[in-house]
Amino acid sequence: MPRVTNGSVDGIQVEDVRIVVVMVGLPARGKSLIAQKIVRYLSWLSIYAKAFNVGSYRRQDNPAPNAEFFSTGNTQGEQLRKAAAEAAVADMIEWFENEGGVVAVLDATNSTKERRRWIAQKCDERGYEAMFVESVCDHEEIILGNILEVKTTSPDYKDMDPETAVLDFKKRITHYEAIYETITETDLTYVKLINVGSQVIINRIQDYLQSRIVYFLMNLHIKPRSIWLSRHGESEFNLSGRIGGDADLSARGRAYAQKLPELIRESIGDRKITLWTSTLKRTIQTAEHLPYPKLQWKGLDELDAGVCDGLTYKEIEEKYPEDFKARDDDKYNYRYRGGESYRDVVTRLEPIIMEMERNENIMVVTHQAVIRCIYAYFMNVPQDRSPWMEIPLHTVIKLTPKAYHTEEERFFANIPAVSTFRAKHTSAKMEGEVQPELVKTEGDVQVENS
Amino acid sequence: MPRVTNGSVDGIQVEDVRIVVVMVGLPARGKSLIAQKIVRYLSWLSIYAKAFNVGSYRRQDNPAPNAEFFSTGNTQGEQLRKAAAEAAVADMIEWFENEGGVVAVLDATNSTKERRRWIAQKCDERGYEAMFVESVCDHEEIILGNILEVKTTSPDYKDMDPETAVLDFKKRITHYEAIYETITETDLTYVKLINVGSQVIINRIQDYLQSRIVYFLMNLHIKPRSIWLSRHGESEFNLSGRIGGDADLSARGRAYAQKLPELIRESIGDRKITLWTSTLKRTIQTAEHLPYPKLQWKGLDELDAGVCDGLTYKEIEEKYPEDFKARDDDKYNYRYRGGESYRDVVTRLEPIIMEMERNENIMVVTHQAVIRCIYAYFMNVPQDRSPWMEIPLHTVIKLTPKAYHTEEERFFANIPAVSTFRAKHTSAKMEGEVQPELVKTEGDVQVENS
Repeated sequence: MPRVTNGSVDGIQVEDVRIVVVMVGLPARGKSLIAQKIVRYLSWLSIYAKAFNVGSYRRQDNPAPNAEFFSTGNTQGEQLRKAAAEAAVADMIEWFENEGGVVAVLDATNSTKERRRWIAQKCDERGYEAMFVESVCDHEEIILGNILEVKTTSPDYKDMDPETAVLDFKKRITHYEAIYETITETDLTYVKLINVGSQVIINRIQDYLQSRIVYFLMNLHIKPRSIWLSRHGESEFNLSGRIGGDADLSARGRAYAQKLPELIRESIGDRKITLWTSTLKRTIQTAEHLPYPKLQWKGLDELDAGVCDGLTYKEIEEKYPEDFKARDDDKYNYRYRGGESYRDVVTRLEPIIMEMERNENIMVVTHQAVIRCIYAYFMNVPQDRSPWMEIPLHTVIKLTPKAYHTEEERFFANIPAVSTFRAKHTSAKMEGEVQPELVKTEGDVQVENS
Repeated sequence: MPRVTNGSVDGIQVEDVRIVVVMVGLPARGKSLIAQKIVRYLSWLSIYAKAFNVGSYRRQDNPAPNAEFFSTGNTQGEQLRKAAAEAAVADMIEWFENEGGVVAVLDATNSTKERRRWIAQKCDERGYEAMFVESVCDHEEIILGNILEVKTTSPDYKDMDPETAVLDFKKRITHYEAIYETITETDLTYVKLINVGSQVIINRIQDYLQSRIVYFLMNLHIKPRSIWLSRHGESEFNLSGRIGGDADLSARGRAYAQKLPELIRESIGDRKITLWTSTLKRTIQTAEHLPYPKLQWKGLDELDAGVCDGLTYKEIEEKYPEDFKARDDDKYNYRYRGGESYRDVVTRLEPIIMEMERNENIMVVTHQAVIRCIYAYFMNVPQDRSPWMEIPLHTVIKLTPKAYHTEEERFFANIPAVSTFRAKHTSAKMEGEVQPELVKTEGDVQVENS
């Protein structure tokens, strides 16, 4: 919500804050998943974050060790693993000092008090705040799921048949279990997540950014679910090429609203779903025929175009030529006079994203810029691209979060609508029709295991 | 952020949710304080909440018992205290069923597993969610502070000299300690606050509203601090009687900005302070000469008057007579066309209030409607009054939260400014000068001890 000023971002004096989130946990407890989610969430909020995966450092010299490498008796293995941790920490320090990093996530098992003390001291020396995040899990089913889903695709087991890989990986876990010490160091800042949030223990949380990360972790769940996103149907303003406003749907927009229940019926099936709209007429009218409990969020209203509200892109270009250019140059940060930027929209969407993480199946009927921001969160789209993504009218986007990526499907109503997409350095084309087809893509997240 | 629709408020399906926050803890652990804070916070968010203090029920028949009344051996005392708990629970049920209550806070020691099991069952029977909040504290200093500050003003010790009261109260605590069982019932939803948030244990938090209460509790601290609030100096728009906009300060407004550092210097002393402004020119210019680290929040921008932005109240009355009347009838909920209501402002201020709770000394330079909302939070002002409060220009309001109330001081710069206050059912008077004087008042919160 706050703007950058005096080196501060988003209410946090980032100038003074460097946080090292130190993952703790046995293999197959979802550490890398949590690390990725933290990085994605913070990046979306413009907080510079990066995960440092100790396993990938270790793999530089030992690309595919078997379980014995991780045995307590294996002194050489132990030395090599310590060297990998040291290399990761050295790179992390380099990143903090020379690249302006704010939150590093050190992704490794960090399973002994000795190792954690070493990291805490490294952080202390440089004024970084160490925050340990332990994932404890004794649900056999979840662990086995993690082993199967993630580990068989790990670079460590690249050319091994899956069954042998699982056996070897289970043996590796046993070696870690032999030396594992759960966090009891009450002088450290830590969060202990027990069985995916069924119990959370929070110790000595120190500042705002830490508390935000904790609240985010509290809200995560791993129940299967999907999110359906749709823009409102074509509006009268879309027809005349005007932005903003609070217009009614056009005839074609009403046809889309009519067709929407059928379009998604099969995809939703008998799942319990809640429908969220903005407070503007065009989203409420679009959701009118959907038979689900409804909720209106002011926070889902379209990006406020300020003095440009109700104008066409052509009029904006004529009336405010410098603004028009400035917006093209940095669309994410450009704030309309008296209105909002994409950055502002992300800030007001943050509690809504938190609600999305916490909830199960949701359908959201909202606006172009707002969908771009939501989509960017789930699909990890960077800020220089997200404001330029094409989100056509009369199309439902279904997102299904998986462990390390988000699956995407699109459903096309095949009802013509104007295109409201405006490419960089052009006036908007406000004609043409959306292309009917079904597309499947996947948000890509790279993960390596330690 | 979301509007009421289908019986839902603020993103929560309140239709389905009834939460009983059950306080747990020895006497003098700040339970009543926490209970009051929860009620104030939720009420401010328009969630209907009420504390039920078992002590006040017990006092109906036993207005001033001595410590022996609370002894384990005292069967009659035990029976009477159980009867008081039953009466409180009965009233609470009545409140849920007939008055639309959403969150009840049951304020008592609830110090045994047996008592908690009884409450959990009572809740289960009626579909209420019981959430136990235990305050554990072994800092002698804090406990003694609680004993002195609160207990000597308790109705139980009304006519007793303070020293005798403290001795008797300490004896009462000893009786409770003899039977006290900390929460270990892992099948219950609970939050354990250890030494005022230095450690927090969260077990089985189930839904959004619970998670919000937990996040609020995580952010509380009891370090002494103050908050300084000021509107921007008089602006050019104030002079011409226009609302909204992004005008520069008037000459008198600039004089206020010049004088501000001196006006608050003594009050701030050598405390470390952060200065928050909105993103609008008039607050940034007002803070210009203050030598503190600054942060701009979009969320502190003035209430958005939508189509009325830039108009005078007289013009609004002429142009939108029905809106003008509707706003007078329910100013808190009235949303300007294309703009915001006070309710909307409270929603976007919520993360800022959370930040205020978490931080220590802050000065906030913002706008009339925004200050009304912040002030209403700290001083517990109801929604029918808060939008009508007079917050004069060129005045600093200092709020100092204490255990059960908030102290207020006002500092007047004695620089004339127009009054922007408009009484109900009038057009605004936009002339006159603020009255120079120093006022001290206190926000009044009634508290009783169990």
